Amino acid sequence: MELSKRQETILRIVKDEGPITGEQIAEKLNLTRATLRPDLAILTMSGFLDARPRVGYFYSGKTGNQLLGEHLRKLSVKEYKSVPVVCQEETSVYDAICTMFLEDVGTLFVVREGGILTGVVSRKDLLKSSMGTRDLSSIPVGVIMTRMPNIVSCELDESLLEAASKLIRNQVDALPVVKDAESGDGVEVVGRITKTTITKAFVELGGGEAV
Amino acid sequence: MELSKRQETILRIVKDEGPITGEQIAEKLNLTRATLRPDLAILTMSGFLDARPRVGYFYSGKTGNQLLGEHLRKLSVKEYKSVPVVCQEETSVYDAICTMFLEDVGTLFVVREGGILTGVVSRKDLLKSSMGTRDLSSIPVGVIMTRMPNIVSCELDESLLEAASKLIRNQVDALPVVKDAESGDGVEVVGRITKTTITKAFVELGGGEAV
Repeated sequence: MELSKRQETILRIVKDEGPITGEQIAEKLNLTRATLRPDLAILTMSGFLDARPRVGYFYSGKTGNQLLGEHLRKLSVKEYKSVPVVCQEETSVYDAICTMFLEDVGTLFVVREGGILTGVVSRKDLLKSSMGTRDLSSIPVGVIMTRMPNIVSCELDESLLEAASKLIRNQVDALPVVKDAESGDGVEVVGRITKTTITKAFVELGGGEAV
Repeated sequence: MELSKRQETILRIVKDEGPITGEQIAEKLNLTRATLRPDLAILTMSGFLDARPRVGYFYSGKTGNQLLGEHLRKLSVKEYKSVPVVCQEETSVYDAICTMFLEDVGTLFVVREGGILTGVVSRKDLLKSSMGTRDLSSIPVGVIMTRMPNIVSCELDESLLEAASKLIRNQVDALPVVKDAESGDGVEVVGRITKTTITKAFVELGGGEAV
């Protein structure tokens, strides 16, 4: 949303001198209160200003980008997660690579009985181990995976934005979406959020189609 | 930006009956023109409605998400691209994997003299070839890479949104940013856009910090 010059001026006045009434702003600009009403309404409804009866207008401290951020923060992990692809600790590195290609994913989650998360194995982990070893069928994934509790995960009711932020901060390609196991022991994997998920959401937000 | 109930109603009226004047809308709602003025101003300035003097209000056909999309479309490849990491066709698969780990990237661009793009090699390509082969030092990257012209790329003045859309449509993790070579023969690699780039842009838009 683009602000007009007059709206920018009002924003600056309120920022410097708020709380301030509509009448006082009008006076400063040599305009009538009625002339300013649409501008003040726009600034208030779009979230740039806060208004309190009998006190006046406050600067909300939010920029246009922050308001856009508020929109983004409403997207949730629950809406965007995709199905997790899993293997077991005993799965061989060879079979893990095959699963990765067959399912066309970049990260496998390692689980034990009941879907309880025990580790994560990435394309990078598999590439590293495939360089040094002759017989990929003889090494179990459990040996090369990143193991709990050193795994960054997210939960269903988290925002997609927070998940994206974790991907960047921790330099990982995927997060398991987890919930507490019913047994009370560990967490269950119920989905995955990857950089592909975020890229798709970005395309959707832009009005494009993400297949 | 959240619309009020009255603004939603106005939007529906204009959608169904536009072009329509402010007076006519006011009449339909049993309100005065003055009461509606702020709402009409908000809807026009935020892009939901178009207004033409002496004719009336039109529905712009844009939804809130489309307006957000307009903001996104302003982000450019030029602003967000990162440095490309390259190798030559003669580089061995072994050395390519080492470069990938050392530079911490998921895709290498293969170039010849003058930085002219000849191919792309992904972590997936390297993983595949490392599975079947004993001696990774003896295979050149030229044998396993995706070769021009089968490479999806983007240009400096393209929007980041279009680049994100190409990543998804073509199921690749990275795009080379290219420009026509001065020699007139082929394209030169000047940057890269990856799903990490898009995820960082997403975090930034949301007001977070992407390191």
